Amino acid sequence: MEATTYNITFNLDGGKNLTAPAFAGESLLEAANKVNLAIDAPCSGNGTCGKCRVKLLSGDAESKESRHISPEEYAEGYRLACSTKVTAAATVFVPATALAYQNRMKVTDLGTGREREIFTRLQEELRNLDLAGDTGLELITVSLQPPALDDAAADRERLLRTAAEQLAGEGSVSLYALRKLAQALRDSGFSCTCLVRREAGGGSTILDIFPPGSAAIIPGLAIDIGTTSVSILLVNLQTGEPLAVGNAGNGQIRYGADVISRIIESTRSGGLERLHRAVTDECIRPLINQLCQNAGIRPDAVYRVAVAGNTTMTHLFLKVPPEHLRLEPYVPAFFDTGYVRGADLSIGVHPDAEVMIAPSIGSYVGGDITAGAFSSMIFKKESLSLLIDLGTNGELVFGNSEFLMSCACSAGPAFEGGDISCGMRATDGAIEACTMDRETMEPVLTIIGPPGQKPAGLCGSGLIDTIGELFRCGVINAKGKFSREGPRVQRDQWGIGKYIVAFASETENGRDLTLTETDLDSFIRAKGAIFSAIKTMLTMLDFPMEAIENVYVSGGIGSGINVKQAVAIGMFPNLSLEQYHYIGNSSLSGAYAMLTSRKAADMVADIGKGMTYLELSSHPSYMDEFVAACFLPHTDATLFTPHE
Amino acid sequence: MEATTYNITFNLDGGKNLTAPAFAGESLLEAANKVNLAIDAPCSGNGTCGKCRVKLLSGDAESKESRHISPEEYAEGYRLACSTKVTAAATVFVPATALAYQNRMKVTDLGTGREREIFTRLQEELRNLDLAGDTGLELITVSLQPPALDDAAADRERLLRTAAEQLAGEGSVSLYALRKLAQALRDSGFSCTCLVRREAGGGSTILDIFPPGSAAIIPGLAIDIGTTSVSILLVNLQTGEPLAVGNAGNGQIRYGADVISRIIESTRSGGLERLHRAVTDECIRPLINQLCQNAGIRPDAVYRVAVAGNTTMTHLFLKVPPEHLRLEPYVPAFFDTGYVRGADLSIGVHPDAEVMIAPSIGSYVGGDITAGAFSSMIFKKESLSLLIDLGTNGELVFGNSEFLMSCACSAGPAFEGGDISCGMRATDGAIEACTMDRETMEPVLTIIGPPGQKPAGLCGSGLIDTIGELFRCGVINAKGKFSREGPRVQRDQWGIGKYIVAFASETENGRDLTLTETDLDSFIRAKGAIFSAIKTMLTMLDFPMEAIENVYVSGGIGSGINVKQAVAIGMFPNLSLEQYHYIGNSSLSGAYAMLTSRKAADMVADIGKGMTYLELSSHPSYMDEFVAACFLPHTDATLFTPHE
Repeated sequence: MEATTYNITFNLDGGKNLTAPAFAGESLLEAANKVNLAIDAPCSGNGTCGKCRVKLLSGDAESKESRHISPEEYAEGYRLACSTKVTAAATVFVPATALAYQNRMKVTDLGTGREREIFTRLQEELRNLDLAGDTGLELITVSLQPPALDDAAADRERLLRTAAEQLAGEGSVSLYALRKLAQALRDSGFSCTCLVRREAGGGSTILDIFPPGSAAIIPGLAIDIGTTSVSILLVNLQTGEPLAVGNAGNGQIRYGADVISRIIESTRSGGLERLHRAVTDECIRPLINQLCQNAGIRPDAVYRVAVAGNTTMTHLFLKVPPEHLRLEPYVPAFFDTGYVRGADLSIGVHPDAEVMIAPSIGSYVGGDITAGAFSSMIFKKESLSLLIDLGTNGELVFGNSEFLMSCACSAGPAFEGGDISCGMRATDGAIEACTMDRETMEPVLTIIGPPGQKPAGLCGSGLIDTIGELFRCGVINAKGKFSREGPRVQRDQWGIGKYIVAFASETENGRDLTLTETDLDSFIRAKGAIFSAIKTMLTMLDFPMEAIENVYVSGGIGSGINVKQAVAIGMFPNLSLEQYHYIGNSSLSGAYAMLTSRKAADMVADIGKGMTYLELSSHPSYMDEFVAACFLPHTDATLFTPHE
Repeated sequence: MEATTYNITFNLDGGKNLTAPAFAGESLLEAANKVNLAIDAPCSGNGTCGKCRVKLLSGDAESKESRHISPEEYAEGYRLACSTKVTAAATVFVPATALAYQNRMKVTDLGTGREREIFTRLQEELRNLDLAGDTGLELITVSLQPPALDDAAADRERLLRTAAEQLAGEGSVSLYALRKLAQALRDSGFSCTCLVRREAGGGSTILDIFPPGSAAIIPGLAIDIGTTSVSILLVNLQTGEPLAVGNAGNGQIRYGADVISRIIESTRSGGLERLHRAVTDECIRPLINQLCQNAGIRPDAVYRVAVAGNTTMTHLFLKVPPEHLRLEPYVPAFFDTGYVRGADLSIGVHPDAEVMIAPSIGSYVGGDITAGAFSSMIFKKESLSLLIDLGTNGELVFGNSEFLMSCACSAGPAFEGGDISCGMRATDGAIEACTMDRETMEPVLTIIGPPGQKPAGLCGSGLIDTIGELFRCGVINAKGKFSREGPRVQRDQWGIGKYIVAFASETENGRDLTLTETDLDSFIRAKGAIFSAIKTMLTMLDFPMEAIENVYVSGGIGSGINVKQAVAIGMFPNLSLEQYHYIGNSSLSGAYAMLTSRKAADMVADIGKGMTYLELSSHPSYMDEFVAACFLPHTDATLFTPHE
C-alpha cells in the first residue's frame, strides 16, 4: 500500500511559491526541507525558540499549543512549523522572519569602510613581514623553435626543453594543459605564456598555457565556511587585491543551526552526502560561479584555494564523517589534511588546483581559529593577547609569541540572531544600538536602514546594548528577571516577563517587538559561557584578567559591538576600551593570507601544531565558573569594578 | 522544416536487433554508427573492401553497383552498407562477418599454453633482473593507542605519529582514506592495515585502510590499447600473478580501421570526445569492471595502472588532440606524460591511482613499442636483434644494448583480417594453416574449431600460408597474378582472377571462400612495407640483413605464423628459423612489467628517451625499397637465396 501524500504549498514572503509533497504526520518544517526551503529553526524543531512561525492560509493541519502563539494569533492561522503536522493539503505563508537564509546572512565582508580599512591593514602587515605575493604561481613566457622533419620532438618535450632554465628543476605539464598545448603553440607561432606552479617537493608544473603577452590574471579563492554563512573572496594573486567578494547562507542550516545538529544529521542514512552537497553544491560552487562571472574569470582557471572553517565544517566540506567530534573523547578525523586537489572536490575550480585547508586543533577549535590566530597577529607579539571570535559559536585564543591556548565556549547562536525571539541579522530594520531613560524606561533606538525605517528585530550589537541598558536602568536584576513595572514591562499567561522594545504600531510586522525572560536567559547563558571560558583559561595558566594587554574581537557581531556595554554586563573582561580591537572576519582574513602566501600558510600550520587545546567540558572548575558568570555582570562583583 | 527520419532496423547475426533513425541520403553504415553498431569497414566506407556486406530484408534503399556483389546476390538483397543510401524505412540483416567487433577481436592473451609459457618466461626474466615486486605499494599494520580526553589527537595525526617509522619520511593520508579512517579505526580497536605508496619525491601516502590482518589484495591493471582491440590484465601486485585477463574490441573502430581515419574523425566537431569515450566508456571501463568482478575486486581499489598503446591511442585515451600526428612534420603533443591520476580519467579506478603511460618516440612509434622493446629484452643484449610488432600497423625496432632504432611501416590491417575479402580473426572457422598439392592445386586446410568445423575465412597465419603455397606451386607469379588455370582458379566479369580456397558447399556461410588478385595485391603491399622498412633501416645503419642475430615477433598474428612461409614470400628476412622467436603481445607484457616494477617503468622511460625514430616517409630510398619489395619474394632474388 502506498502512503498518501498531500501538497503543501509555501508562499514565501517576497512572492515565491514552493510546493512539497508531504506524508500525513510530517511536520511543516520537514515538508519544507523536502524542497530545500530553510525555515528558521535554531532550536532544531523542538518548539522552544518560536522562530518558525508561519501562517496557515488554507487547508488544514494539526498543531500543538505553544507559548509563542497567542490564542488570537492561532485564530488568525499562525502556527509553529516545527509543531504542526500535515493532515491534508494546505497553503502556508512563510514570513521573512522565518526564512533562515535571510535571517542568518551576515553583513558582507569588506562591505563597509571600516572593514576595508581592517583588510588594508592586514595587507600592509603581510607586506611588512615579507609574506605578500608568495603563491608559488607565476607566469613565464617561452619562445620555442618550431618543429621540423629533422627535429620532430613532441610539443611537451619541446616546451620543457626550451623552458628548462625558467622551470629550474624537473618540469612537468599538467594533463589539462597538455590537452590545449598543440593548438596553443600553433596559434601563436610557438611562443606562449605558461602558468607555472613551483612545487613544494621541488620542480615545476605547467598548469595552463596562454597566447604570449596576454595579460592573464592568476585568480585565487579565500573561503570562510561558517556554520551559518559562507564568505568568499576572489583575489588577483599577482597583486593581492580582491576582485570580488560575496557571501551566502550555508545550505546546511535546514538541518539545524548548530554544529551538533549537523553532526547528528550526518550520522543518518545519506546524511553526510546531504550535508556535503548542501554546502558545496548549493552554496560554495554557485557563489564561486557568481563571483567569477562578476570578475570575468572562468572558475576552472582558479588554481589556488584556501579554506578556513570550524572542525565540523571542514569535515563536511571534505565529506569526512564528523561523528566522533561529539562523542567522548571528542576526536576529529583529522587536524591537517595535507594536499587536496580541485579534482577531489566539486566546487568547479581547476582539477589541478591546490586546495589548502586551515588546520584544526580540536573538535571545537577549527581552522577558522588557527587562521584567525594568524590574521590577528597575536602569535607574533610579545605582549599577551586574547582573541574572541564570535560566530555561531564563540572561540577564544590566549597567548603570545611564546604560547597559544584556545578553547570553545558553547555560546550558541545568540549573537547571530538565533535563540533570541526577536533576533535578526544586522540589516535593514535591525536595531543596532539602544539607549534608555533610567526614569521612564523609554528606549531610543538606532535602526539600520533608510530614514523612517521601522524596527524589525535586534541584531547582536543591539541586543547587547538593550540588555545593558535594561540592567543599567534596573529594569532587570542580576538574574535577568524583570524587577520594575511599567507600560513596557508585561507578563504573559505563564508569568514570564517581557520588555516591549517597540510597540506593534511602530514595528515592521505589526507585532510587539519584545525581549522576554527566556531571551534574557539565553543571552545570559551565552555571555556567561564566553566570560567563564576566558576566566577558566587564564586561571589555568595562572594569569589574572589584567594580564591581557589587548583583546581582538572578530566575527560578524564585532562590527557594531558596544564594548562598554559588553563589559558592563560581564560578557567581556573589565579592561579599558582602548585595549579592545575589532578585526573583522579573521577566519576569512587568515584564509586570504594562506592564499596569497605559502609562508603564511606554513605559519598557520605551525600555529595549529603549537596551539594547546583546552577542552572546557572536561575541566573541573569550568562549570562553577559558568554558573558564577550567569549573572549580570557576575557573582564576583570585584571582577567588574569600574576602572579609575 | 524538419527533415524526415526513417527507421532502419538492423537484425544482427546472433539475434539482437537495433533500430536507428536515419535521414534520407545517409548510408546504412552511418545509420549503424548512430546506434553504436560497428559494421566492419576497413576501407573507411569507400566501397573498396567489400567487408560491410549486409542483406536488405524489407523496405527500400538506393545502392551503387559493386564488384563485391554479384547480380544474383543483389537480387537476393545483398548490399554494401557503405554504398547504400537510406530512402525509406528498412530492415537489414548484418551477418557475423560484417560485425567489426567480432571480426577484429584477436585471440585472448594468455589464452594458450604457448602464450602462458611466454608470460612465465617474462616473469622469470624480471625476477632475474631483480625487477619483480617493486611497485612502491605495500601493506603495513599499525596499532594505535586509542584516544582519551588527555590525548585527543585527531585520527589522522595519531595514525601518522604511530606509523612514522614505517612511513619513513613525511607521511600523508589520501582524502579517500581519510573518509574511511574514523570508522575503520573504531571498528578494529585502533589497529589497522594500511595500503601505503612510497612516493617518488620521498615520503609515503596512506591510500587505503583495512581491518588488521585482512588478506587484502593490492590489484593493478596492465592495459594494451590497440587500434583494433584492447587487452587488459588484472594483476595481484603482491605476487605478480594475473588474476584475470580479457580483451574487447576498441569501440573507435566504427570511426575507421586505421589511426589516420581516427585522427581525421578527431578533428570533426565533437570528434575527440566521441573517440575518447568510445575507448574509455565503451571499452576500457566495462572491461575493467568485468575483470574486477570476476576476481572479486572493486575497481576503485585499483591504485596502479600501466597503459601501453600507439601514439594515436594514448592521445585519444587522454583526450589530447592527435591532429598534428598526421600533419608534417608529424609531431605528437607529448612523448611522455608525467604523472596522471585516476581522478583525471574516467576508467573507474581509484582517484588516487597512479596511471603510467608508456612513452612514445614518434607519431607512429608509440608506447606499445617502447613497452615491447622492454619486454623483448633486446635493449639488454649485446647481440643485434630485430623486433617486429604486427598489430593493425607494423612497427620495427632494431638494435642492442648500445642503440635502438625504430620505424613504422604502413602495413595496414591485412594481418588482422582487414583489407582482405575473406580475412577474419583467429577463431572458430578460421583457416590457420594450408598446404597445397603442387600438381592439382588442391589445398589441405587446418581449421580452428571442433571436428567438422567448416571454414569461414583466413586468419593472418592462414593467409601467409595460403599465399606462400600458391606461390610455391606456381599458381601465382611474382606479381601476385594468377598464372595457371584449373577448377579452383576463376576470373570475374572484370577479368580479376581468384583462387577458391573452399567451395560454397564446404563453407560456413555457403559462399565460395576466395582469395582475389585484389587481396593478393593488398597482402603483397603489406608484406612489402614490412620488408622494405627492415631493409631501409639496416641499410641506413650500414648493416647487412645477416647482422640480425635474433628476430622477435610480437602481436596477435605472430602466434600461429609459419615463419618459413613468411620468409619464402619475402615478408621476413632470410634468416634461419631458429633465429625467430614469437613473444606474444609485447605491448601488454611491457605494460605488465611497468605495472609490477617501478624500475622497469624507469627503464621503459629510458628506452623511450634513447630510441631513435626513423621517419620512413621522409627517407629518400624508402619508396624504391618498397617498390622492390612488392614482389614475391623480392625483385632482388639474392636476398632470398635458400640457406644451406
